[in-house]
Amino acid sequence: MPMHNGWLPREGLTGDPIGRLIKRTAFNPAFTLIFILLARYTKKGSDLSILHEKAFSRIKKLFYFGLVRWASNYLDAGVLDNWTTDTYDWNKEIVLITGGAGGIGGQVVKLLAEKKIKVVVLDVIPMTFDAPENVFYYKCDITSPATIASVAATIRSEVGTPTVLINNAGVARGKNILEASEKDVRFTFDVNTLAHYWLAKEFVPAMAEKNHGMVVTVASLAAYVTVPNMVDYAASKAAALTFHEGLAAELKTRYNAPKVRTIVVNQGYTKTPLFEGYYNDSKFLMPTLAPETVAEGIVKKVLAGHSGQVILPGFAASLTFFRGLPHWYQIRTRLAGEVIMKKWNGRQVIDVEKDYHGDERGGAKEESESA
Amino acid sequence: MPMHNGWLPREGLTGDPIGRLIKRTAFNPAFTLIFILLARYTKKGSDLSILHEKAFSRIKKLFYFGLVRWASNYLDAGVLDNWTTDTYDWNKEIVLITGGAGGIGGQVVKLLAEKKIKVVVLDVIPMTFDAPENVFYYKCDITSPATIASVAATIRSEVGTPTVLINNAGVARGKNILEASEKDVRFTFDVNTLAHYWLAKEFVPAMAEKNHGMVVTVASLAAYVTVPNMVDYAASKAAALTFHEGLAAELKTRYNAPKVRTIVVNQGYTKTPLFEGYYNDSKFLMPTLAPETVAEGIVKKVLAGHSGQVILPGFAASLTFFRGLPHWYQIRTRLAGEVIMKKWNGRQVIDVEKDYHGDERGGAKEESESA
Repeated sequence: MPMHNGWLPREGLTGDPIGRLIKRTAFNPAFTLIFILLARYTKKGSDLSILHEKAFSRIKKLFYFGLVRWASNYLDAGVLDNWTTDTYDWNKEIVLITGGAGGIGGQVVKLLAEKKIKVVVLDVIPMTFDAPENVFYYKCDITSPATIASVAATIRSEVGTPTVLINNAGVARGKNILEASEKDVRFTFDVNTLAHYWLAKEFVPAMAEKNHGMVVTVASLAAYVTVPNMVDYAASKAAALTFHEGLAAELKTRYNAPKVRTIVVNQGYTKTPLFEGYYNDSKFLMPTLAPETVAEGIVKKVLAGHSGQVILPGFAASLTFFRGLPHWYQIRTRLAGEVIMKKWNGRQVIDVEKDYHGDERGGAKEESESA
Repeated sequence: MPMHNGWLPREGLTGDPIGRLIKRTAFNPAFTLIFILLARYTKKGSDLSILHEKAFSRIKKLFYFGLVRWASNYLDAGVLDNWTTDTYDWNKEIVLITGGAGGIGGQVVKLLAEKKIKVVVLDVIPMTFDAPENVFYYKCDITSPATIASVAATIRSEVGTPTVLINNAGVARGKNILEASEKDVRFTFDVNTLAHYWLAKEFVPAMAEKNHGMVVTVASLAAYVTVPNMVDYAASKAAALTFHEGLAAELKTRYNAPKVRTIVVNQGYTKTPLFEGYYNDSKFLMPTLAPETVAEGIVKKVLAGHSGQVILPGFAASLTFFRGLPHWYQIRTRLAGEVIMKKWNGRQVIDVEKDYHGDERGGAKEESESA
């Protein structure tokens, strides 16, 4: 499966290629500089700049804006990597990914495996595709640190020590706050948020010790905006985003590991079993993504070896400051989201009431036991 | 204890009173209009406006900015309350507050009790002050829905049905991701995030049925910005903020209760046992708050009976779009935060390893049991 590299994304003519075009032209100081130089050093350019004074003044403004943007991107790249460089030897790295048996995770596994990279998959469901022999599957309930520890010991002896951890597994129950059972809510947070802590505790110390490695947090655009019937999901993803931000800060200030990279992924609605039945009301700016598109975004970023953020679709980058917008705008957007959730039921990857051994906390029961 | 109503806050001359002054003058269209009218209808004003053309043009810009701000605030107020009105009879309302035995919660209880409002306190620790007889204390472990249900039944029969729920209880363990034990992390999320779901499931249905009531979520500024050694705390607060946003959306679209109000509180560092040892490096813009200041902010908002957000200190409102700023700025801010956390140990309200019956998930143990 070759990576998609065309100008138009798989999803067709959406806002993204247009946004990319604007970035590469109007917002690109090297591009706008051409016009400024032409106006300065050619007769025709000079005449035109005098004739269209306002247009020329705008080009100059775009040029300065482009310069500021360029400087900010330069600073971003440096600060994200703590001004350190590090190289990855993909013949030796071992990538561990949770929820890699299918969906976006499965596509990530396929792309990495094609490049002959060793991939360890942790999942509760069996593999949904035939994987080559450089893919190692371990059945693992990541909601239990003890289970993770025991599986990790096996992985270390059978495959080796993972240097890249991709926290990809995610679940959504699709119920509203009052309908959701205790197990629904606990399961959602256990998989989408808390597992990131348990997996970090298990695999980050080895990375920190060697000052080499990478932790990828697959969050969601829901980290920025929630809508009805996915409040626990969105909350767990907001918490996952915070985990990513905090881990990056602690790697530098607490674990003496400035070279360990951190990547966060905020993808929009993707055609996976998780979002079956969801209704897309904004196909141009927020197209429903193919799992392959998200997986390629993740894999390209991982292979580049730098810290950063992957936001898909690109237009959704505007959601990062959504919480700073006026209340009326925020509230209307969240209310409008109810339409897209009407036929959405989340993904029932397991029967939580039966198979999830979360702690339905028997407080009252405890009391009667001790009585 | 009378409410503090002076122009200067308890904390002294900080950014807040200056910000308030600017809002009431330069950003106030009624104020800037005066100058525009003077320039138009008086000889002296007209002369001055011609003499200081640039200054006058700026005043006009401020006036239009003020108008836009005024319109946005008007829309905010309407949309926040779903364009409905509702009245509160504080002789009849029953306020339930978690973590009301001390700290910010204790101050809220005192302020409400002084107004002869019935207050029900849920806490795991005993009351730290003598409360009048309109305060009803129930020891309750809010990490257990079963315990909440049993205590709620007692409250309904002994006091009545709560109409205002203040999710105020919060804990912070003060450890970094790799140090924190499973119980540390689970306890933090249990109290700061999941309890909001259990308490909502218990008390919101009665509010929704009467289309009257209020849910207050005491989050934190940490919902917007995390720093080392409080990543789980910040993540749990980001999740609490999302809970508030989602509950508001579901009250309108799912529970047919547009009059049930929702308030979120994002307070900065407060002089409570939770933040002992924390170092404040920005006293002007982000003063360390007195618990009374935060409590008054909450109580004033509750008594007003409208949905909305309380951000303290006021300058911190800029943090709502923090996640939309360039990475280098965000990362530097989070890294800088490590200084303020050096001597901070969180609040060990209970010994979690001993007294917290969270589910240390014995995955491996389970396996050996079943083997």
